[in-house]
Amino acid sequence: MNQKLKNEELNRLSVDEFKHTVKQAVVVVLDNVRSLNNVGSAFRTADAFLIEEIILCGVTGTPPNKEIEKTALGATSTVKWSYFKTTLDAAEFLTQKKYKLFAVEQATKSTPLNTFNSFDEKIALFFGNEVYGVEQEVINVCDGVIEIPQAGTKHSLNISVSIGIVLWEIFRHSLKKEL
Amino acid sequence: MNQKLKNEELNRLSVDEFKHTVKQAVVVVLDNVRSLNNVGSAFRTADAFLIEEIILCGVTGTPPNKEIEKTALGATSTVKWSYFKTTLDAAEFLTQKKYKLFAVEQATKSTPLNTFNSFDEKIALFFGNEVYGVEQEVINVCDGVIEIPQAGTKHSLNISVSIGIVLWEIFRHSLKKEL
Repeated sequence: MNQKLKNEELNRLSVDEFKHTVKQAVVVVLDNVRSLNNVGSAFRTADAFLIEEIILCGVTGTPPNKEIEKTALGATSTVKWSYFKTTLDAAEFLTQKKYKLFAVEQATKSTPLNTFNSFDEKIALFFGNEVYGVEQEVINVCDGVIEIPQAGTKHSLNISVSIGIVLWEIFRHSLKKEL
Repeated sequence: MNQKLKNEELNRLSVDEFKHTVKQAVVVVLDNVRSLNNVGSAFRTADAFLIEEIILCGVTGTPPNKEIEKTALGATSTVKWSYFKTTLDAAEFLTQKKYKLFAVEQATKSTPLNTFNSFDEKIALFFGNEVYGVEQEVINVCDGVIEIPQAGTKHSLNISVSIGIVLWEIFRHSLKKEL
């Protein structure tokens, strides 16, 4: 019989343990994300999959913020974050730090997520505004574009869902290495 | 150079084409989900990954509903849905229809999502309430529990994100078959 596990049975990390745990070499960059709900969700997902840092750019809201906390549920105190006035500034900073930059978008020469294989590099993932997506000028300075294959009627997935899927794909790959 | 694609360049299905497209043999069941935002997101994700049906149970809101539409963005008119008063009734219906039932939860004998391999059966995926998760009495009638491995400090992921990750894992597997 499968019995549901209580919080204390999950052996999750404490805030302090989280800070000293080796993270994935992955930075999530939010390019002018409007919804504080989406920002909070990014923190919660980044906590679950041991993401190194979240960079908030432009109009993207920053902690401390009540609305962000509603979905982050405390993950703003575990996941490292910083703010850049423009997403291009963040891109330049990350390039200098030797990260490979990938926009998550629909584009002419995108790599489908299921064939993405740059797992051994330091990577920065750019997620865009709810309506406009990642700006073309940001895509222009990226090393590539990752696209989540979709087969339905809608243009794209919700940004919180997209972040979850792409970060899971990377975390999933790290689990394979452990086996 | 990677150029962003416009909506009309994505060759997405029309509502009518969607209805006649072969779907994944997957039903998503929402067990007393409180947030209409999460319900809408489930529709939008189910549309993208060609899910057969969404079953809304108990207190879970149903279309037509303005709040659901905000995140569903029209996907309530593409994805088939139905309503059951209790999640156990839905489980009984699906068992009679020969679906294998899986709760997405943290449980004692769960299968980590990255090792899940029941892709060749008709499956029903049960996602639970934002606070209480899938009810134990529902888990008791399921054939198994799928758990999304997580390594951070938080108990679980947001339900919209969990739905995205699990449906992506299944869609991803169907893409492999095409190669």
